[in-house]
Amino acid sequence: MEAENLLSRFHALKQKNLKLDMSRGKPSRAQLDLVSDILTALTDMDDCIVNGTDCRNYGELAGLSCAREYWADVLGCKPSQTFVGGNASLNLMHDVISRGYTHGLKDSPRPWCKEEKIKFLCPAPGYDRHFRITESFGFELIAVPMTPNGPDMDIVEELVKDETVKGIWCVPKFSNPQGYSYSDETVDRFANLKPAAPDFVIMWDNAYCVHEFDGEFQPFREIISLCEQAGRPNMVYEFASTSKITFPGAGISVLASSEENIAYWLKLAGVQTISYDKVNQLRHVRYLVDKEHTLDLMKKHAEIMGPKFEMVLKMLRAELTNRGIAHWHHPQGGYFVCVAAMPGTAKRTLQLCKELGVVLTPAGATYPYGVDPEDSMIRIAPSLPPIEELEQAMEVFCVSLKLAALEKYLGKTLDTNA
Amino acid sequence: MEAENLLSRFHALKQKNLKLDMSRGKPSRAQLDLVSDILTALTDMDDCIVNGTDCRNYGELAGLSCAREYWADVLGCKPSQTFVGGNASLNLMHDVISRGYTHGLKDSPRPWCKEEKIKFLCPAPGYDRHFRITESFGFELIAVPMTPNGPDMDIVEELVKDETVKGIWCVPKFSNPQGYSYSDETVDRFANLKPAAPDFVIMWDNAYCVHEFDGEFQPFREIISLCEQAGRPNMVYEFASTSKITFPGAGISVLASSEENIAYWLKLAGVQTISYDKVNQLRHVRYLVDKEHTLDLMKKHAEIMGPKFEMVLKMLRAELTNRGIAHWHHPQGGYFVCVAAMPGTAKRTLQLCKELGVVLTPAGATYPYGVDPEDSMIRIAPSLPPIEELEQAMEVFCVSLKLAALEKYLGKTLDTNA
Repeated sequence: MEAENLLSRFHALKQKNLKLDMSRGKPSRAQLDLVSDILTALTDMDDCIVNGTDCRNYGELAGLSCAREYWADVLGCKPSQTFVGGNASLNLMHDVISRGYTHGLKDSPRPWCKEEKIKFLCPAPGYDRHFRITESFGFELIAVPMTPNGPDMDIVEELVKDETVKGIWCVPKFSNPQGYSYSDETVDRFANLKPAAPDFVIMWDNAYCVHEFDGEFQPFREIISLCEQAGRPNMVYEFASTSKITFPGAGISVLASSEENIAYWLKLAGVQTISYDKVNQLRHVRYLVDKEHTLDLMKKHAEIMGPKFEMVLKMLRAELTNRGIAHWHHPQGGYFVCVAAMPGTAKRTLQLCKELGVVLTPAGATYPYGVDPEDSMIRIAPSLPPIEELEQAMEVFCVSLKLAALEKYLGKTLDTNA
Repeated sequence: MEAENLLSRFHALKQKNLKLDMSRGKPSRAQLDLVSDILTALTDMDDCIVNGTDCRNYGELAGLSCAREYWADVLGCKPSQTFVGGNASLNLMHDVISRGYTHGLKDSPRPWCKEEKIKFLCPAPGYDRHFRITESFGFELIAVPMTPNGPDMDIVEELVKDETVKGIWCVPKFSNPQGYSYSDETVDRFANLKPAAPDFVIMWDNAYCVHEFDGEFQPFREIISLCEQAGRPNMVYEFASTSKITFPGAGISVLASSEENIAYWLKLAGVQTISYDKVNQLRHVRYLVDKEHTLDLMKKHAEIMGPKFEMVLKMLRAELTNRGIAHWHHPQGGYFVCVAAMPGTAKRTLQLCKELGVVLTPAGATYPYGVDPEDSMIRIAPSLPPIEELEQAMEVFCVSLKLAALEKYLGKTLDTNA
């Protein structure tokens, strides 16, 4: 009965010839339009000069003062602890790893390319683009299980005793993909880590620092001062960007760390460039003003994002609750919902979705090397499609997941072409 | 007599308490104002979508199609041979060297960090920021003498027989700092180089490709197709930017090379970022339109730059001609005039300038490791100061150079405090 019912829904959905994409956390057209006044935030040439600095010309490697102040306000650190980058914080993260490899970080005994072996910790599921950076440099990726409180810190504390372990990737608030925020205890344990490697680096990607879509802004502990208090000020590099505040392709980014790290960074960055785009920095400061004003804007993003997440969660509840075939966390911010399907059914679920014209993030993508050992985690990115499409896509997803689970239970593949 | 006369001029200049900066090729305020309509070249959100691509969102790693077409038009190559970057071509150059070091270039037997020794050719005098990149990665810098036709190709052809020589820095048109343009024969010999290293790279920084300030646009041979014809299509990476066309701090840049190199580059760049700022790319295409329109704009820059260079050259002629203490080339484009002072007098000249409040590019900066073996070359950057200041600065320069030459002749230091 269940099989027939599911197959008939599957065929009905197939008739619709859908072509929907939920593979990436891309903001929607409505969100881009929402912030497009930034295009006219800086149009007068006389406005390009702030405190004697002409943002149009060369110079100011660390970024415009007002842009450094903006980020310090948002992140809760000092302006002197910031370095303002271009349109992608990913690029800054890549460059930190790349500099570790080519020159060494501030406290490195030698450049990482001179080490025989480098290991890097990857809380999983996590962000595939993080993992790919460290994979690209040939590091061994070590998966660390995620818990609702963040990475399993017992395991992290154990692993960092190995001096070939040089760092860890973190998305501390509304983690990608599960939407967990690290608990205060987890953050504390991070700040108090005593890694064997003197140049161990916490890659603290605060991508969703102001990205609540459900409820009020949730303050979050400031990692740089905590590391300083714990006596290892140079252990953390924090990252953020306006990619999901203004334009994904044309925002500004920041690297924040101890003043000592910033000074070291400036020496290396000064070989690479003269400065990042300061006109865009000023445009952003004029448009976003400060943290408070940014939070007001994020409420408007939430008005677009919130209903999409509600739809996803409503469909998941209606179709999958209490069946023992899937569970998920209800996030209050970030860009994803992560569904843990029955082990061994994620790939098959996505294959069935694809047959129905719905593309999701590939199974395994959220694990190091793209391999989910349980074949269970599926990342849903609801931001891009309009809500009507989302409803259809979620029906496709739920039917596919249930079919995959049924197949698992029956121990055989059902003929979906029948 | 000469000494008394010079010292009296020196003291008169000292009374003026000047504070002038000619150290860097920074465009002037007038040039920035000239192009500030670019701030309003893209203000309507509906204009952000070109051929179905929303420049505000993620994607299009190689750059917007129209931006690739723009650069292909300017450089004379194919759009498929371009990769559009952020606000600094220097950053792209750095990243090519960095990728060679960490991953190897397309035809590298292994990453350069795994080589025992890397040498890099530096036509000198040249651009200090080029040399610094390769120095930063620990390569041995080999100076190659510059001639009015470009680097001495007899020497280059000899040096590239050494397989540890992995590349050469070039500013082929209006070279920094002398303003020489490579002759057709030089360009041909570059394209036909047969280096021992399979991954030898010509870093072809076409920084001043449309930057005539005196006379008509001078067409220049297109290196990518020449290398292709010569059977080594992957040997050259060409670079350019709008830093001195629109805003120095907020332009767009390009890397151009064989399609094979671009494909390889995209694989590596895809680990580093999702795309560069496409809103700024579109803003530039809307504002600059094409090569022809860009050349019209460069005529307007020339109206500002031309008189400054005339002033510099007039002062040099009036003060220094036929004295056997200095010679220089009269450039027709680019950003610099390079004065070859009597050997052993460049540092002293700049020291005297500094005493009079005029800062120039440090002596030696245009040589590998910042050391001019002849202590002769002095780079003058006339673009930033207004013309009245420039006249004063040039008087300071000429008096200082003559005093330094006189001291050399007399074999003793004159007391400039007397």
